Amino acid sequence: MNNNTENWLYLKRTVRFGETDAAGVMHFHQLFRWCHEAWEESLQNFGLPNNEIFPSLTKGNNLLKVALPVVYCHANFRNAIFSGDNLQVVVKPIKLNSNSFEIHTAFQRNNKSLAIGLIRHMAIDPKTRQRVHIPIGIEKWIEASSINQGPIPT
Amino acid sequence: MNNNTENWLYLKRTVRFGETDAAGVMHFHQLFRWCHEAWEESLQNFGLPNNEIFPSLTKGNNLLKVALPVVYCHANFRNAIFSGDNLQVVVKPIKLNSNSFEIHTAFQRNNKSLAIGLIRHMAIDPKTRQRVHIPIGIEKWIEASSINQGPIPT
Amino acid sequence: MNNNTENWLYLKRTVRFGETDAAGVMHFHQLFRWCHEAWEESLQNFGLPNNEIFPSLTKGNNLLKVALPVVYCHANFRNAIFSGDNLQVVVKPIKLNSNSFEIHTAFQRNNKSLAIGLIRHMAIDPKTRQRVHIPIGIEKWIEASSINQGPIPT
Amino acid sequence: MNNNTENWLYLKRTVRFGETDAAGVMHFHQLFRWCHEAWEESLQNFGLPNNEIFPSLTKGNNLLKVALPVVYCHANFRNAIFSGDNLQVVVKPIKLNSNSFEIHTAFQRNNKSLAIGLIRHMAIDPKTRQRVHIPIGIEKWIEASSINQGPIPT
Repeated sequence: MNNNTENWLYLKRTVRFGETDAAGVMHFHQLFRWCHEAWEESLQNFGLPNNEIFPSLTKGNNLLKVALPVVYCHANFRNAIFSGDNLQVVVKPIKLNSNSFEIHTAFQRNNKSLAIGLIRHMAIDPKTRQRVHIPIGIEKWIEASSINQGPIPT
Repeated sequence: MNNNTENWLYLKRTVRFGETDAAGVMHFHQLFRWCHEAWEESLQNFGLPNNEIFPSLTKGNNLLKVALPVVYCHANFRNAIFSGDNLQVVVKPIKLNSNSFEIHTAFQRNNKSLAIGLIRHMAIDPKTRQRVHIPIGIEKWIEASSINQGPIPT
Repeated sequence: MNNNTENWLYLKRTVRFGETDAAGVMHFHQLFRWCHEAWEESLQNFGLPNNEIFPSLTKGNNLLKVALPVVYCHANFRNAIFSGDNLQVVVKPIKLNSNSFEIHTAFQRNNKSLAIGLIRHMAIDPKTRQRVHIPIGIEKWIEASSINQGPIPT
Repeated sequence: MNNNTENWLYLKRTVRFGETDAAGVMHFHQLFRWCHEAWEESLQNFGLPNNEIFPSLTKGNNLLKVALPVVYCHANFRNAIFSGDNLQVVVKPIKLNSNSFEIHTAFQRNNKSLAIGLIRHMAIDPKTRQRVHIPIGIEKWIEASSINQGPIPT
């Protein structure tokens, strides 16, 4: 297990041309893709195997005991983001209760805040759609992420 | 100019296979694309030419006097959305002040609420990035949309 | 079953702002999404239920007996496509053999050819990944589409 | 200028959950996004500034003297690609003539070929849409990439 939060909470991302629109800047909804991908990269860097959390056909089985659908998300856009920008990405998870958690993700360029996104997940049984406990791996990731952390990125 | 709000505030959309993920349901951030496309379709149905509002290279000119970047957005997801679902889409714009407005968009299947999205736009000068008045065409669309309307879709 | 090919082989699509990039024109790979969505719309208009062809979690079952992965695709781009363009979409399926078929899709603006895309599908058993016969519904759609048809759209 | 082709022709990419569909595997058209992003990353690693090649609103100017639209592309899909897969990406550019070039991109998992994509670009004047010479930076990247290279990845 990884002991250096730098490794999984502070990521990098370069903005790509196809993520812009004809106004010449990043098209807004790409930010949510970035947030979700930052979350996946964070779990991977922490040491949590992707196929324990996200359903996949690998090995002929795409049924996990817990699904983690997004129940709410929001984003604030403060400064334009351009193709080629090298972004710093700061991930901060928060446990809300035994069934749900949210992840704040901040995007910066040269330490200037450009945008933040928040995604809230609910843990459910994929068959019954009833609430269940957050998977233990996610619990550990949230707990380890909370140690020695500053305030929520803004 | 169109006088029947049915025409531009009540739209339809069928969920496509590529909009799902390996959990078997619509992948969350597609909703923001749907919201923005519903807005564009609403303006078009109302009678507002696309190239008066959205920058484009058409006629060699992609510079408009007013840009309308998204400054904030959020979404609530209440029920799973599946490939092949035929959705009702209800668009409701609200003017916030002379520089900004927001659009609430509700997605329903057989009158059951599945998800809602909100997008807030700021009117700015694309060169100076300073706030300017909402374009007159957008003003008229918001005003016409407010007549005989019920509460914000939820 | 629908008897008018107009209904399922000649479709319409309006280009949306989020489908452009900072060069001011449609970003190339959107075309493949359009091709696949035109195929889905064509099957739907023909009368083939979406959930007989595309896996979905609806009713708790996302396993179909036949999967139709894309094994090859290509596209030619002839003229720039702009946000707001109202496109005519012409779909033409071709059966290659008992296991595979391809769909040619042409995109036009005012009868001017802008781009064409081709997608080739293979019918397989999703568990064994071995080739199987094309589903009967798809066979019927291809057959009905071939009657009274002109040459492949270019 | 970078002298180690390893640096700009051999890249890595992890498949993300949002890139899958309800069949449990990567949705086909994502491959073209990966190809284009690999090209951008390759140019960046080689030392070519993004804003010399791709239009952007940065510094209030999104007009470059040369645009590089995609005129053709294709892809072959050989083996299913799953969420969480750590892919090797091999980029190989080829100059076709003074106005156009193409980039072959191969995607492998544990040295097993999964898919290849090809994108062909034409150099044009963005105002007149007439053919022009490939930008000198791109020429240098193609030339440097050709030294000590093996066959086209398949």
